[in-house]
Amino acid sequence: MKSIGVFPGSFDPFTKGHEDIVRRFVPLFDEVIIAIGVNSKKQYMFTQDSRQNHIEELFKDESKVSVETFQGLTVDFCKQKKAQYLLRGIRNATDADYERSIAQMNQQLSGIETLFLMCDAALSPINSSIVREIKKNNGDISAFVTKDELLIIN
Amino acid sequence: MKSIGVFPGSFDPFTKGHEDIVRRFVPLFDEVIIAIGVNSKKQYMFTQDSRQNHIEELFKDESKVSVETFQGLTVDFCKQKKAQYLLRGIRNATDADYERSIAQMNQQLSGIETLFLMCDAALSPINSSIVREIKKNNGDISAFVTKDELLIIN
Amino acid sequence: MKSIGVFPGSFDPFTKGHEDIVRRFVPLFDEVIIAIGVNSKKQYMFTQDSRQNHIEELFKDESKVSVETFQGLTVDFCKQKKAQYLLRGIRNATDADYERSIAQMNQQLSGIETLFLMCDAALSPINSSIVREIKKNNGDISAFVTKDELLIIN
Amino acid sequence: MKSIGVFPGSFDPFTKGHEDIVRRFVPLFDEVIIAIGVNSKKQYMFTQDSRQNHIEELFKDESKVSVETFQGLTVDFCKQKKAQYLLRGIRNATDADYERSIAQMNQQLSGIETLFLMCDAALSPINSSIVREIKKNNGDISAFVTKDELLIIN
Amino acid sequence: MKSIGVFPGSFDPFTKGHEDIVRRFVPLFDEVIIAIGVNSKKQYMFTQDSRQNHIEELFKDESKVSVETFQGLTVDFCKQKKAQYLLRGIRNATDADYERSIAQMNQQLSGIETLFLMCDAALSPINSSIVREIKKNNGDISAFVTKDELLIIN
Amino acid sequence: MKSIGVFPGSFDPFTKGHEDIVRRFVPLFDEVIIAIGVNSKKQYMFTQDSRQNHIEELFKDESKVSVETFQGLTVDFCKQKKAQYLLRGIRNATDADYERSIAQMNQQLSGIETLFLMCDAALSPINSSIVREIKKNNGDISAFVTKDELLIIN
Repeated sequence: MKSIGVFPGSFDPFTKGHEDIVRRFVPLFDEVIIAIGVNSKKQYMFTQDSRQNHIEELFKDESKVSVETFQGLTVDFCKQKKAQYLLRGIRNATDADYERSIAQMNQQLSGIETLFLMCDAALSPINSSIVREIKKNNGDISAFVTKDELLIIN
Repeated sequence: MKSIGVFPGSFDPFTKGHEDIVRRFVPLFDEVIIAIGVNSKKQYMFTQDSRQNHIEELFKDESKVSVETFQGLTVDFCKQKKAQYLLRGIRNATDADYERSIAQMNQQLSGIETLFLMCDAALSPINSSIVREIKKNNGDISAFVTKDELLIIN
Repeated sequence: MKSIGVFPGSFDPFTKGHEDIVRRFVPLFDEVIIAIGVNSKKQYMFTQDSRQNHIEELFKDESKVSVETFQGLTVDFCKQKKAQYLLRGIRNATDADYERSIAQMNQQLSGIETLFLMCDAALSPINSSIVREIKKNNGDISAFVTKDELLIIN
Repeated sequence: MKSIGVFPGSFDPFTKGHEDIVRRFVPLFDEVIIAIGVNSKKQYMFTQDSRQNHIEELFKDESKVSVETFQGLTVDFCKQKKAQYLLRGIRNATDADYERSIAQMNQQLSGIETLFLMCDAALSPINSSIVREIKKNNGDISAFVTKDELLIIN
Repeated sequence: MKSIGVFPGSFDPFTKGHEDIVRRFVPLFDEVIIAIGVNSKKQYMFTQDSRQNHIEELFKDESKVSVETFQGLTVDFCKQKKAQYLLRGIRNATDADYERSIAQMNQQLSGIETLFLMCDAALSPINSSIVREIKKNNGDISAFVTKDELLIIN
Repeated sequence: MKSIGVFPGSFDPFTKGHEDIVRRFVPLFDEVIIAIGVNSKKQYMFTQDSRQNHIEELFKDESKVSVETFQGLTVDFCKQKKAQYLLRGIRNATDADYERSIAQMNQQLSGIETLFLMCDAALSPINSSIVREIKKNNGDISAFVTKDELLIIN
């Protein structure tokens, strides 16, 4: 059986923090799916196409990594993909409390486990919502997002 | 003087976590009022009637427990009901920081104290907003909400 | 049945923070026992007699409050006293994580519940081990301990 | 070179907690600018004019303190004002995690450092969003905001 | 290359919380080594032999799991065993802060990654030092430790 | 009046994290004193002379920085040196809770304020006690301590 991990998120945008977590999980799995959650009621800063394109570009040389979009529950997407694990990073104590709740509910709901890595220390401050705030005010986000020029504002 | 405790919340929905906290507080009081806060500007997932009905059904054999709705400040509702205590559960450190701020401000505002119990460990991951997310995506919430079939989506 | 709460600790020393928590719990119970844990292998800064005397002095006008010493498990002491509740204060998030673990284990071990109040905000920084550090260095601890002159160093 | 610190926020409203932090930072700087962030998409409870007037009134006898409004990134405002430091208060662990992320990203973005003071313990529960909730329900916010009568609801 | 994970600790005693984490990590690896750290200067409650025997007994039907003792740095033990991953559980926010620091230092020191699972919610209160405290006072630890009768006090 | 800040600690050893905090505080003060606390009952890993020598070496080109040892309360040392500020770094939420308590007690005891900087993200995992653990096991601590060769084990 292939070992498959799913790294879910809205990735608005996909930061260097996300990128680092995916690269570090890759050796552990046969396949890692970066799963962009699509919620029709949510307003995203960057277009869905550009977010997907951006992530694909970052991992184009990494044959184990694919990028997909999904709607609905993350655990349902995992089942559909026959993925055994959800993958997440933890930056700090507040993250840990939040992630713990979701991971334990997902486990109870579906049996699917969530594996965690601690974020790289230097990247741990990066936060997508602050990155958006910077971008909205015409600040330079290249310190926080690799190849940010690929992202297109909605 | 009757000892009265008020357990306030929006209960959208009322989870097994809420239920456990109420049942454990009951022996300490003559009367426990589960107080559903109504905020006309807020959008709830489940109808107010079905939320109230659901909670009443759960405690129909518990004569000390009643269910009411209220508008305005929680401490004003307590005064009106001559309740001496607010009752809350704590799931984790983030909860504790948030609850501490509210409890201390309520105490300063009104003299009304907030009593806390630690959530049952097994129920501590349950979070109403994740439950709503699951429901919205047609997931099964029966692991997190007793008699969830009584709830009606708005 | 009398409602009895036990407020346990080593109280080396009993600070204004402890005092505030006890005074606020008193109206809820018929009897509150301040229980000084005695561990023969532990080194205390203040003599056991002076710690007990100090606390008794603080509550001499509070007929519902008594002071006792105990050895062994806190929940065993509660059972012996027919106390239904352990009483504790929470100062911050770190406290909450620590207290949660103990409260849930005690509940599983004995069925005895732990009730929490948030510490008075102004008293929330007070910490017995820092108070000892100040005393050890001949600092003035009267801002943190009522009637500290009653305490005798071992 | 003049040492200049910027204390940024939406101050909706400016609480006793904010006031305390500013007063304690004043001795460290030649000039402290209280910077009211203006976001045209955000809905504030109190009018911008009354918020500015309120803060100016509180510090009218403090010649080192001025009040300004700004749009865009906080670090850009700092550069424009030649301010070397951002100033912030910390109330609890959750605050610390949140502030850490912003401070480290701001530092990386601009080289501007953020200095922190711990909030006065007695004022640490005060939270602008709870203050608004109280005001919305016609509660008395004077325990949390000095000269609250100067604030005008939008 | 065999995938090998090391679950390190002093396991004084090995609780149901530890046991759960190991069982959930097993499917991800070819081999999981439970590594009992031996520190000649530390005083353990249970004999080293009985701790090792106890853990071996728990996993006697799990061919992928072995139990070893080690001295020195955990990352050196991993290298010697050609293990690519350290394995740990997280119970709460305080754990997360502590584990983050160690995981990031170990990563920097050796390149060895630490993988985390969130503890099973119901087991999350279990804490070896409280278990020892209960045992020391002749309490029953069987709710927290499987086959606790195998452990021998030093 | 000269502005003087005191950075206190046992510095066993003085890590890159400490070093970064001091360098970032220097521009804000006329003088920064790194104050090595000496507690005759405590056992340190590195000799006091080598710890002092190590820190002096790191700041030999920084004329505003001096290194001193002190006994007794930190706030008493500050008064003796006419220092107005204590200086500290914060790494995470657990640190923040701990530091808050000490800072607020010191403020109440003496009027001396504590200023905080967030640790550099990349250095935030560094922890003196883990560094000692690595050294004790003959690990290489040079990633965590500049010029660690100057330190001599007791």
